[in-house]
Amino acid sequence: MRLLDPLFRWPPVEEWLGDRARVQAMLDFEAALAHAQAAVGVIPATAAESIAAACRAERFDLDDLARAAGVAGTVAIPLVDRLAALVAADDPAAATYVHWGATSQDAVDTGLVLQLRGALDAIAAELRRLADAVAVLADRHRGTLVAGRTLLQHAVPTTFGAKAAGWLDALTRHRARLAEVRPRALALQLGGAAGNLSALGDAGPRVAEALARELRLALPDVAWHAHRDRIAEIAAWAGLCTGTLGKIARDLALLAQTEIAEVREPAGEGRGTSSTMPHKRNPIAATVVGAAATRVPGLVATLLAAMVQENERAAGAWHAEWETLPDLIGVFAGALHHLADVAVGLEVDAERMRANVDLTGGLVFAEAVRMALTPGLGRAEAARAVASACERARAEERPLRAVLEDDAALRPHLPDERLAALFDARDAIASSGTLVDRALAAHARRNAQEG
Amino acid sequence: MRLLDPLFRWPPVEEWLGDRARVQAMLDFEAALAHAQAAVGVIPATAAESIAAACRAERFDLDDLARAAGVAGTVAIPLVDRLAALVAADDPAAATYVHWGATSQDAVDTGLVLQLRGALDAIAAELRRLADAVAVLADRHRGTLVAGRTLLQHAVPTTFGAKAAGWLDALTRHRARLAEVRPRALALQLGGAAGNLSALGDAGPRVAEALARELRLALPDVAWHAHRDRIAEIAAWAGLCTGTLGKIARDLALLAQTEIAEVREPAGEGRGTSSTMPHKRNPIAATVVGAAATRVPGLVATLLAAMVQENERAAGAWHAEWETLPDLIGVFAGALHHLADVAVGLEVDAERMRANVDLTGGLVFAEAVRMALTPGLGRAEAARAVASACERARAEERPLRAVLEDDAALRPHLPDERLAALFDARDAIASSGTLVDRALAAHARRNAQEG
Amino acid sequence: MRLLDPLFRWPPVEEWLGDRARVQAMLDFEAALAHAQAAVGVIPATAAESIAAACRAERFDLDDLARAAGVAGTVAIPLVDRLAALVAADDPAAATYVHWGATSQDAVDTGLVLQLRGALDAIAAELRRLADAVAVLADRHRGTLVAGRTLLQHAVPTTFGAKAAGWLDALTRHRARLAEVRPRALALQLGGAAGNLSALGDAGPRVAEALARELRLALPDVAWHAHRDRIAEIAAWAGLCTGTLGKIARDLALLAQTEIAEVREPAGEGRGTSSTMPHKRNPIAATVVGAAATRVPGLVATLLAAMVQENERAAGAWHAEWETLPDLIGVFAGALHHLADVAVGLEVDAERMRANVDLTGGLVFAEAVRMALTPGLGRAEAARAVASACERARAEERPLRAVLEDDAALRPHLPDERLAALFDARDAIASSGTLVDRALAAHARRNAQEG
Amino acid sequence: MRLLDPLFRWPPVEEWLGDRARVQAMLDFEAALAHAQAAVGVIPATAAESIAAACRAERFDLDDLARAAGVAGTVAIPLVDRLAALVAADDPAAATYVHWGATSQDAVDTGLVLQLRGALDAIAAELRRLADAVAVLADRHRGTLVAGRTLLQHAVPTTFGAKAAGWLDALTRHRARLAEVRPRALALQLGGAAGNLSALGDAGPRVAEALARELRLALPDVAWHAHRDRIAEIAAWAGLCTGTLGKIARDLALLAQTEIAEVREPAGEGRGTSSTMPHKRNPIAATVVGAAATRVPGLVATLLAAMVQENERAAGAWHAEWETLPDLIGVFAGALHHLADVAVGLEVDAERMRANVDLTGGLVFAEAVRMALTPGLGRAEAARAVASACERARAEERPLRAVLEDDAALRPHLPDERLAALFDARDAIASSGTLVDRALAAHARRNAQEG
Repeated sequence: MRLLDPLFRWPPVEEWLGDRARVQAMLDFEAALAHAQAAVGVIPATAAESIAAACRAERFDLDDLARAAGVAGTVAIPLVDRLAALVAADDPAAATYVHWGATSQDAVDTGLVLQLRGALDAIAAELRRLADAVAVLADRHRGTLVAGRTLLQHAVPTTFGAKAAGWLDALTRHRARLAEVRPRALALQLGGAAGNLSALGDAGPRVAEALARELRLALPDVAWHAHRDRIAEIAAWAGLCTGTLGKIARDLALLAQTEIAEVREPAGEGRGTSSTMPHKRNPIAATVVGAAATRVPGLVATLLAAMVQENERAAGAWHAEWETLPDLIGVFAGALHHLADVAVGLEVDAERMRANVDLTGGLVFAEAVRMALTPGLGRAEAARAVASACERARAEERPLRAVLEDDAALRPHLPDERLAALFDARDAIASSGTLVDRALAAHARRNAQEG
Repeated sequence: MRLLDPLFRWPPVEEWLGDRARVQAMLDFEAALAHAQAAVGVIPATAAESIAAACRAERFDLDDLARAAGVAGTVAIPLVDRLAALVAADDPAAATYVHWGATSQDAVDTGLVLQLRGALDAIAAELRRLADAVAVLADRHRGTLVAGRTLLQHAVPTTFGAKAAGWLDALTRHRARLAEVRPRALALQLGGAAGNLSALGDAGPRVAEALARELRLALPDVAWHAHRDRIAEIAAWAGLCTGTLGKIARDLALLAQTEIAEVREPAGEGRGTSSTMPHKRNPIAATVVGAAATRVPGLVATLLAAMVQENERAAGAWHAEWETLPDLIGVFAGALHHLADVAVGLEVDAERMRANVDLTGGLVFAEAVRMALTPGLGRAEAARAVASACERARAEERPLRAVLEDDAALRPHLPDERLAALFDARDAIASSGTLVDRALAAHARRNAQEG
Repeated sequence: MRLLDPLFRWPPVEEWLGDRARVQAMLDFEAALAHAQAAVGVIPATAAESIAAACRAERFDLDDLARAAGVAGTVAIPLVDRLAALVAADDPAAATYVHWGATSQDAVDTGLVLQLRGALDAIAAELRRLADAVAVLADRHRGTLVAGRTLLQHAVPTTFGAKAAGWLDALTRHRARLAEVRPRALALQLGGAAGNLSALGDAGPRVAEALARELRLALPDVAWHAHRDRIAEIAAWAGLCTGTLGKIARDLALLAQTEIAEVREPAGEGRGTSSTMPHKRNPIAATVVGAAATRVPGLVATLLAAMVQENERAAGAWHAEWETLPDLIGVFAGALHHLADVAVGLEVDAERMRANVDLTGGLVFAEAVRMALTPGLGRAEAARAVASACERARAEERPLRAVLEDDAALRPHLPDERLAALFDARDAIASSGTLVDRALAAHARRNAQEG
Repeated sequence: MRLLDPLFRWPPVEEWLGDRARVQAMLDFEAALAHAQAAVGVIPATAAESIAAACRAERFDLDDLARAAGVAGTVAIPLVDRLAALVAADDPAAATYVHWGATSQDAVDTGLVLQLRGALDAIAAELRRLADAVAVLADRHRGTLVAGRTLLQHAVPTTFGAKAAGWLDALTRHRARLAEVRPRALALQLGGAAGNLSALGDAGPRVAEALARELRLALPDVAWHAHRDRIAEIAAWAGLCTGTLGKIARDLALLAQTEIAEVREPAGEGRGTSSTMPHKRNPIAATVVGAAATRVPGLVATLLAAMVQENERAAGAWHAEWETLPDLIGVFAGALHHLADVAVGLEVDAERMRANVDLTGGLVFAEAVRMALTPGLGRAEAARAVASACERARAEERPLRAVLEDDAALRPHLPDERLAALFDARDAIASSGTLVDRALAAHARRNAQEG
């Protein structure tokens, strides 16, 4: 465990991305390769058994592998050497068939895909947990008035439910995207040194087919070792998700400001509190998510830049992925987990939201008043009249509604009932419930599709 | 036209991304909004006609708009003002209903989506032209031997057709992705100041539905003004595509090196040639594509970073998109067009490819020999024997095949026929044709799906 | 003028970065090259005169140049051709010596440096204007109490002057950096096709020396055409500056929030105001600066990535600079100018700042109380006692000071005078004046150094 | 040790960046703070002794700290708690003065600066080792002819010494930059919760002064906790350096291609070799450096983006630095070390370089011939004549020189001696030695300055 892992990472994903998992995933490839080759008659069945038996990460010394990888330029070369030695100790004949016809990149890339599959399963579940929690907020607060804020200024009223529906809607899209991306990303890589299965003669395609089945991975039409769009697409997806997490977390951090105080992150022993500044409840999760949202774009850019790979294997660009992708996925997953926790336990202060809406003495309803006056007065005159009323309200420190009620010229256009409807925000949020319902329905459909 | 546009951009896309197109797209939104509101009875039908009649970009002074946008902070505000004035000149009553219940962001965002739709149509067609040309290369060169190169070193032989099949396969994936991304990206934005259609009372959802129909855009469940994943996903898609373009262009530039000379970009009057260095044929397209591949990752990162938008409208992050997205799409499209031209006219020197394969005196077949020897000699001994034969071949400057033929110990494992098969690369490329066929079939399916 | 230029760019810099300036800068290089070569006797003096006479951008058709650059892959090639033709029309013998011994990259790179010099001069002056305005704020508000906010929560009090001193200090560092960066960046590029002045025989170094003098540029030891650290360093410097601008703008946007309302951007006709939402004063400049801060990191990354240039001229990486650097500098300069305007006219509401400090009933002084109690009670007990007092203050909705005054156990440690000092923030801001003085002094020194 | 550390990192730097070093650096801050405060009389001298005695990383359980940091949101809070407990066990009175008047960010930031100082010392030495090795190459190969290549095509001849001089010159600039950056970056951070030393009353500035002296760090005018340009500047510097490393490594990888074979990385047991592909010598270091050059720009962008920090402490942006900066420095240092090893042991094949120059039958001298003909024939006619001669040379597969010798029209302009000078490249490289000498002199000056 690294010092900052508990802060920035999430163990259920991190264990898929760690060094031991990396080694095991490559070994899983080697074992499955042997099985597949035995199944199609390329190597003896007994050899496959012996090879598979040795493919357990705990039988390998990771520090030794690390040092050897530093010389060889890749982990796969020393891993295969040591695997062959392990097999040879038990079954010398079988050692011949270790890594048969494959290249080191096949092990590295397919191993990576296996790691990603595990990580994505955990992420998908956590994404659902977050979406479920946000759906509860949207539903519960469908009528909770809150100031709509643009450019960090009050604009017009909205509901906290509509706000949460916007969050939910984005999350639902990300889940739909993942369903599209998964089958492309989780594909076997088996190509041999130049991607054309040259070392397997005409048995290559059959071996690949059997191996994909064995590993439950998609079988690609062509080896993708030098075409990294499958990997970069996962990175881009994680980047898009992180953007949404960052947006939600930023909203929460802003709403949690001392002066606004509309939401608070859930409390916990020592969590975000300070004995010395007891008035504070620091937004820990928002902070962690904010850090992720700051970091991830650069990591995605790296993986996009790394797509420019020379010929049949790149000199550097491929290697740029090795630490970057796990970092990216790990940081994203950590942020996701933190935010899911917050969404589940978020403290929402509906009264404070309403109080903040009223902070400007009704000016937040000015746009609605202007719309109400426009048919009668015309566009320009309505705008002028409202601006003037607002000016008076500010100058005299009176509520806008009172100013309007006293305005003989405007009164005919604003009968009591109309004024009431405008200033209790009924009109303003008339459609908010529809938006919430739609977002909830789409969320429910997504859940149903995921089973 | 800017000085570098003909080099870096492609007019059919650029005209969708330019300032006039931007203004017209916002006006298309305003016209359609009026029509939609008339259709659902929110504004008078005659007003809609008057408004729509004024929505022609050529009636607006772009420099004036630009200056006003510099003060207002957005183009939409002065555009709507001037539109209302234009309408008022003809039909004062109609002016009241200009931009009715919408917010400036609705015009900017839906306008952007309309621009993107036009640009993506052109891009999709050009992507198909590129893929078609690459498919021809894959088919034509399915048997053309070429050195497979890893880390910029000869590894094992492959075919140029298999190489092109790898390119094609990636392009086909990008086209499939676009089909998924389009409906998410090409969605209406109509939300009013806070995204909840507050100014339209309970008519909001009906107006949105009619407007989406009018503009042939998807109708979103919730306004997405503060959730930019739809936009960022297009950017990410363009980033993935550009990565593949960059990979292909890099391959071509490397194969075109003076010492390698296996391909040349198509010639043209003054194109990449130099009267002073007549031995040169500079890879212009590869250069332009390389530049795009260098630039695009940073631009994608910007759009991902810009997803963190505050509350109902961001203070800066939204504005960061305005120049970045057109730049990204424009640079990508320029690279795409250049590369399509190159792919259509690429000069391939199959003889030189074969000559380069032979450059190392057969060492490029060493791995195949090792594989052939392994069943008989065992893994370790086969490796040792081949290494020793290669060493001898280098030391004595003789072909590897001759060295092997003279080796009494290895001869029993390498009968004449076997040796011939190894050294004419028949084995090595046995599966290449299958890969090519698969890639071509997937390409044909994709073309059929696109109609 | 492009549609968004008045919003995002600043004319005094933009005119240095535009297409006409680019062409003129290359022509300035050609003219000076001819003069320099005449001076050292490499070409006839009369030829130099004829060449220089033709080097005026208005004599060139930019659209024609653009189209030709699209074919040639660089603007310099057609520019030199057309320049030679212009010269030939007046003085056929002189045409021979146009661009003598130089390569197209020499014209492009030195031209770029000349553009940068002009842009940096304007930027340096604007940076000073911003720093001067911030210095006034720091000085004027050295005693203006404001809530220090960490993680968007009130922490402890500080002064607005200290806050501004932090801004100023960073700006002073950026100005010092520019003084270091300028001489490295503003260096002549003259190398010929491979950077070794091969076409000038042994006269190369003398020509370079004369040319650097002519253009008032630094003379590099070695041509830097393939080593872009000089260019990338300017980009990185602009990136660092933009980060600081973004930080200041973010602070301002946060302080300007409706609920906080401690500062407002200066008003102007139509500037950030809305007739429909008259309670709003949108932070236009903060928005523009925020957009720049979102965009610039990706652009810097592009220029760093573009440093990896192949051999004597890159295939793409160099070309990636051509639009990116002007974009970066232009966006940075636009942000700088906007922020300078804001800093000059910023409306600061000191009363509101004080009122916000008091918003938590004195809890913002809790840390100071804890420090005061620690020597007497010990670290742990002091923390416990303060936490408990704060809890009581919140529960009973009383000021913390009142709670403490009623606490018999704590009273002996908090005599009246001590309490008063703690709660009027005298202690808290005891050092703030020193910080302000130091920042002002460093600023004054910087101004003096710049003369 | 992580699995890829030996490949991507360099232990002498990595040990400064690791978790234990991070904890020790924060403890060094705490110890020095106590000493400084004792020195100026803010805390008792005996307390300082007790605190300093406990500040040893081995007394802390890193896993425990990590878990606690995950809750608290920063390592510093639990570290200070545990430190206070350790001190209390020995000297209860002293525990009161642990972390006296400081904030967690002070420990984190000053700790980071101490880590950076150690890392930069190691990096500076390695940068010098690399520069020394490149200087040897420049000196040794000042006369070694090599093809100058632009856009990956032969252009004109140059020398390998001139090429190395270009590398050296960039390295020398980076070393000069470091000397400027160090004093800005290696500055004390001590500000307390809001950066104004509020908890230390008027003793703050004196404590800061004593502490800076104690830690041998620069004393800043104003706390920089929310102004990250000092940190980001280090990142940008590392980014610039990495760009140059990437450029050199790219050159080497290109020159090492099978078809070019002008250089090879030094061999080593198992290093970049393959028993199965014995003709290969994989460029391991170039690969690692290439990976770094792909990764670092995105990491720099992250640190620039993270400069936008809210008020007195950012919600996320600061936290984005914590893993990113060590990653960036570590990856850069790993690349630097690998490249230094390569530069020291680089195998240069001067004969092959010369053979490659001759590959085009003298066409590489065409530009020189054109220059030689221009004064006699005029610009246009000279260009035409050379193009025609080159065309003939290619068509007849004869050396360009032979074609020229047979050309009656050109012969008068190209007497034997002139032709010889042109085709033995004497002219072409006439200035190369000067460039090498200058670069070596600047390198020597830099070495002397560093002592």
